[in-house]
Amino acid sequence: MDGNTAPVPAIHRMLHPRSIAVLGASNNPVKLSGRAIALMKRFGYAGRLLPVNPVRAQVQGLPAFPGLADIDGEIDLAMIMLPADQVVDAVRECAARGVPAAIVGAAGFAELDERGAELQRQLTEVVAETGIRLLGPNCLGMFSLKDRAMPTFTSAMDGDFRLREGSLAFVSQSGAFGTFIFSAAQHAGIGISHFLNTGNEADLSVGKVLGGLVELDEVEVLMAYLEGVHDGRELLAVARRAHELDKPVLAVKVGRSEAGARAAASHTASLAGEDAVFDGVVRQFGVVRLDGMDQLLDAGMIFSDGRRTRGRRLTTLSLSGGAGVLMADSAAGHGLDVAPWEPEWQQRMAEVLPAFGSPRNPVDLTANLISDPAMLRRALEIAVDHPGSDMIAVLLGNADHAADELIGAIEQAYRSTDRPLVVVWTGGSGRPREWLRELGIPCFTDPGRAAAALGALADYSLRPGPPNPQRPHDVDERAVRAILCEARDHGRTQLDEHESSRLIAAYGVPCAGAFPAKDPEGAVTAARELGTPVAVKLLSRSVGHKSDVGGVRLNLTTDAEVRAAAEDLLHLAPDARLLVQRMSTGTELIVGIKQDPAFGPVVVAGLGGVLVEVLADSRVGTAPLDPAAAKRLLLSLRGKALLEGVRGRPPRDLDAAADAIARLSWLAHDLAEDLAELDVNPLLLDENGATAVDCLAVLS
Amino acid sequence: MDGNTAPVPAIHRMLHPRSIAVLGASNNPVKLSGRAIALMKRFGYAGRLLPVNPVRAQVQGLPAFPGLADIDGEIDLAMIMLPADQVVDAVRECAARGVPAAIVGAAGFAELDERGAELQRQLTEVVAETGIRLLGPNCLGMFSLKDRAMPTFTSAMDGDFRLREGSLAFVSQSGAFGTFIFSAAQHAGIGISHFLNTGNEADLSVGKVLGGLVELDEVEVLMAYLEGVHDGRELLAVARRAHELDKPVLAVKVGRSEAGARAAASHTASLAGEDAVFDGVVRQFGVVRLDGMDQLLDAGMIFSDGRRTRGRRLTTLSLSGGAGVLMADSAAGHGLDVAPWEPEWQQRMAEVLPAFGSPRNPVDLTANLISDPAMLRRALEIAVDHPGSDMIAVLLGNADHAADELIGAIEQAYRSTDRPLVVVWTGGSGRPREWLRELGIPCFTDPGRAAAALGALADYSLRPGPPNPQRPHDVDERAVRAILCEARDHGRTQLDEHESSRLIAAYGVPCAGAFPAKDPEGAVTAARELGTPVAVKLLSRSVGHKSDVGGVRLNLTTDAEVRAAAEDLLHLAPDARLLVQRMSTGTELIVGIKQDPAFGPVVVAGLGGVLVEVLADSRVGTAPLDPAAAKRLLLSLRGKALLEGVRGRPPRDLDAAADAIARLSWLAHDLAEDLAELDVNPLLLDENGATAVDCLAVLS
Repeated sequence: MDGNTAPVPAIHRMLHPRSIAVLGASNNPVKLSGRAIALMKRFGYAGRLLPVNPVRAQVQGLPAFPGLADIDGEIDLAMIMLPADQVVDAVRECAARGVPAAIVGAAGFAELDERGAELQRQLTEVVAETGIRLLGPNCLGMFSLKDRAMPTFTSAMDGDFRLREGSLAFVSQSGAFGTFIFSAAQHAGIGISHFLNTGNEADLSVGKVLGGLVELDEVEVLMAYLEGVHDGRELLAVARRAHELDKPVLAVKVGRSEAGARAAASHTASLAGEDAVFDGVVRQFGVVRLDGMDQLLDAGMIFSDGRRTRGRRLTTLSLSGGAGVLMADSAAGHGLDVAPWEPEWQQRMAEVLPAFGSPRNPVDLTANLISDPAMLRRALEIAVDHPGSDMIAVLLGNADHAADELIGAIEQAYRSTDRPLVVVWTGGSGRPREWLRELGIPCFTDPGRAAAALGALADYSLRPGPPNPQRPHDVDERAVRAILCEARDHGRTQLDEHESSRLIAAYGVPCAGAFPAKDPEGAVTAARELGTPVAVKLLSRSVGHKSDVGGVRLNLTTDAEVRAAAEDLLHLAPDARLLVQRMSTGTELIVGIKQDPAFGPVVVAGLGGVLVEVLADSRVGTAPLDPAAAKRLLLSLRGKALLEGVRGRPPRDLDAAADAIARLSWLAHDLAEDLAELDVNPLLLDENGATAVDCLAVLS
Repeated sequence: MDGNTAPVPAIHRMLHPRSIAVLGASNNPVKLSGRAIALMKRFGYAGRLLPVNPVRAQVQGLPAFPGLADIDGEIDLAMIMLPADQVVDAVRECAARGVPAAIVGAAGFAELDERGAELQRQLTEVVAETGIRLLGPNCLGMFSLKDRAMPTFTSAMDGDFRLREGSLAFVSQSGAFGTFIFSAAQHAGIGISHFLNTGNEADLSVGKVLGGLVELDEVEVLMAYLEGVHDGRELLAVARRAHELDKPVLAVKVGRSEAGARAAASHTASLAGEDAVFDGVVRQFGVVRLDGMDQLLDAGMIFSDGRRTRGRRLTTLSLSGGAGVLMADSAAGHGLDVAPWEPEWQQRMAEVLPAFGSPRNPVDLTANLISDPAMLRRALEIAVDHPGSDMIAVLLGNADHAADELIGAIEQAYRSTDRPLVVVWTGGSGRPREWLRELGIPCFTDPGRAAAALGALADYSLRPGPPNPQRPHDVDERAVRAILCEARDHGRTQLDEHESSRLIAAYGVPCAGAFPAKDPEGAVTAARELGTPVAVKLLSRSVGHKSDVGGVRLNLTTDAEVRAAAEDLLHLAPDARLLVQRMSTGTELIVGIKQDPAFGPVVVAGLGGVLVEVLADSRVGTAPLDPAAAKRLLLSLRGKALLEGVRGRPPRDLDAAADAIARLSWLAHDLAEDLAELDVNPLLLDENGATAVDCLAVLS
């Protein structure tokens, strides 16, 4: 290693290995332990391929070594194709030999039984002790297409498989399904730089692998298939870095449904994280989450050409009016703007169309296009000129015989602009699609799928960026410590409503004015002080949900009402105290804090009342969060119209709500070790502010 | 025609023509007017092909006729390839010659300009006068694959196109896009019986064509691509007939979004019907509505094998655990039940799996399958035996080299059961997919798409059937007539609240007790009669929305309150009367009646309050409707949990609500000519009944 340059991190030596030792390499190219060498010979691996086999001098025609010690020079990567019970020793030996990274193919670890789990714990210990990086166990390995490094036993490239090198790196927790997707991507013309299967993730998780890949120059798009997430923060760190480098992260995560989560838990050693947390959090960091395989491949195709859009306006040129209508429908459904062109531009387009065409947008070029392919060239020139066309889609179908000229026109237009331009070519033999993809031009069969991919591209291009939270200056840290100490000193984990409210008030969250009271007279005094109407509530450290036991009396205006309510409540729970609180009104929000096992502290915000109960209308955000991100979170609620003002009601003060959520997120972040959960229910929002009316915190 | 048999309807002669005259047939097989003859020669049309050309003795090698009059024998179908301005005369001549049906290919009718619209009106007149059936104008024609009848000028079959005959008939309003979908279907291995493009629908609409197709023995699945619906009732009649014959109707209708509807309106002469009406109504009749092209093709594939499921339980056998998880997720999202198998069946399955497989469901067969394909055979035998497996999905990928044995096992299982069995084969060369489709076994690439298709199959298989409404016996028709006459006599179209309530009460809809009153003392007397609390409302035939002008006072209990409220209101509108109504409570529904231009009278029901305002949570049903269908409509609301009881509240009386909606639907049906619209807002629903509290009707 040259002293003037920083050492290459282990993961980068693994991702571009100049030498690969295969431990347990078989001479039989068909056996699992022989496949990696066969693949690398077949595709022409550029580095040193080093079979290790104690009983053979040659393996598949290559000189073999009895052991690692017999190899001269550096080894960048070891592929361990030994049975599970020999793996721990082998990894230790690799580390001792200075091998920076190893792949463990064998199954029989945590996914199988307790004995396997013990072996996997030992592997993790070796990693911790030695610093070696480990892919697997129970993984298919990896491949890097640039240098044809293929330490893998997959059969995905059997037969007359054509490798397509490209800028998309794909990491999959699932082995077999990962290779199915890899194969489908390659057949769809999507060029790949790397594929890695992380298996049981004893060391390298999807997040860590992506963290290595994102730094590689040739990688421009990251794609992940996830079944469960252990290290959410790692994933968010990659997402933040990918955002900086403008490298999109495309992710499918299964386990969205209860059934899927159950299946994921039984299938791997993963515990599927709570899906709503994953969904909310990764989207905040600009990750493009996709629902299934086709969507993932479609996004992979459209992002692979590296273009971004500067707006949501889509211009569609279609051979078929009908296809144009379907495209307009779908595009609108994916948040794109498919408004008609300005009259002067329609006029210009009309000059190249037949009389029964339509220049509005979608532009109906009509089937005349087939006999007059030059029309497409002229129409595309106008569309590329048109400043309002942020993205362009060309819709064609069948017409194999006219493909030459049509594709020529499309290629010319594609090269003449840096804006996204995609083709939908439905029906026909499929050869025009292949041809367009060879040219690097995204091409779909279904207008709806093209619209979804364009929508994802627009969402990514126009993403706000990860949260950029600024710590509030006015946190009363002494008050926070006092509240926590008081509870700890008394061995309590449940804070009462008054303590909970003081806790969030210390973080600057506005709370409804309230005083505790010991008896009815104290309640009356408090009510006079606060001004009526007031609510009187039981203040108990044992009763969590006051309203379930009838422990809340609302809208009390006279002394007599307050006194009677207080007496009633104390009758209900003679040892309790009371909280007298000024009544507030407004739209109900619910804001909560919880600790997620994968992502750490998160905030949850939703509309209160019927919407949260009936529709589970809430969203999750990371903690800490900036007010702008908190506001976007509120505006992504399905019932957001309630906040923006419906039926002539004034809009609610969203900035106040966002500020309160951001402050609560700092609380969640700062007290991640102390606070198990906290709920503000409701946070009332009117046109001039937000007020926390009820709050309950539970310490860890 | 044999006197002993009924005459074959014109449309059936068209769908299986024994002779086709082509008017304006060109000798040039490449010209639009030469293509039909070229196609039928190429594919071997079995009937008499009769070119009509006044200047040539032969057309493309066939003897030509100067005019229709020169042809002997019956002509089942005329294809008119003449310019627009010659079409009307030609159709008239066809009718005079006794030709039962004609296709008009030319554009230049209502889709172009006013002159064209006039020509189209003339065509409609000829149809009305003569009874000839007409496809088009501005259509690509049709083809019937069984007899290779191809009166069409499409280029969809150019090149080395392979026709796949089958049981699916496809009707498209869009010409070019229809043929794109046809081509994509054929390439996906979906066999077609007919394709028809209806174009401007001067006579034959999609509904009418489907009405002919549904009666053909060889047609088992109907597929439609719609841009707008003119004759909704025709479509519902077909849907009802298709339900009786158990022939699924698969439909894509564009124009769902505002942008799509705008594009559809500019593209054809159609006015896109209101999408929510279409959606609600056709689903009630069992139509399978699909969102886009891929979904349509996927449904076409799964329905083409003719199988139905008896339940929603899906068993998945997967080579890859990861694919199984994705399938479980997607299947749950499409309403399928993917619960684990019973322990004893898991035990049985475990015996054929390797130790690291999973027998739960999704069954993880593991990648061992590739080296032991016989495992699939054994696993499938168990799955077919398992009584809880209503549907079976086999998930494979890549593995071209093992395809022989795997497909053999699948085919054996497929033939051994009549339950739906589908394959998802991801990645690889695609040849195994083609092979499976050749065998008639539905095969997908994406587990998510397979799950969607299986969900559609389950929805269809378990459909409740079209509404079967029974007229209520207790309608007070005299009261209805009296209310209508009273309004008509005074030239009013707006009924006041009291009249409107009496109208629905005459149909047996329970209304809150109410009396009109002229003055405050009358109001007090009415309140005493009804029992308090009461509401007092302005009863005006000019003020529509009372609450907007402050014309409603609620929750009045004492004489003084009633009197004061009455005085207030009369001060507001001195000429008005008052309505005193007993207060009711309950969950708010909104039920409306309106007249749809395409489907006639419909009912709309939704949850009141915030859900209808913010989420537009309502559904449309046909009128009349039976209570069971009305109940399903309520249970399809997103906020249905409100009706079923949330947070310990008792469930609402859904049967009472359904009965009220059914009665209102009869009112809508019976008064279709008289009633423009009617709104019951709210219909209050508690655990013991439904009560209409406010109602306003507008006459036509």
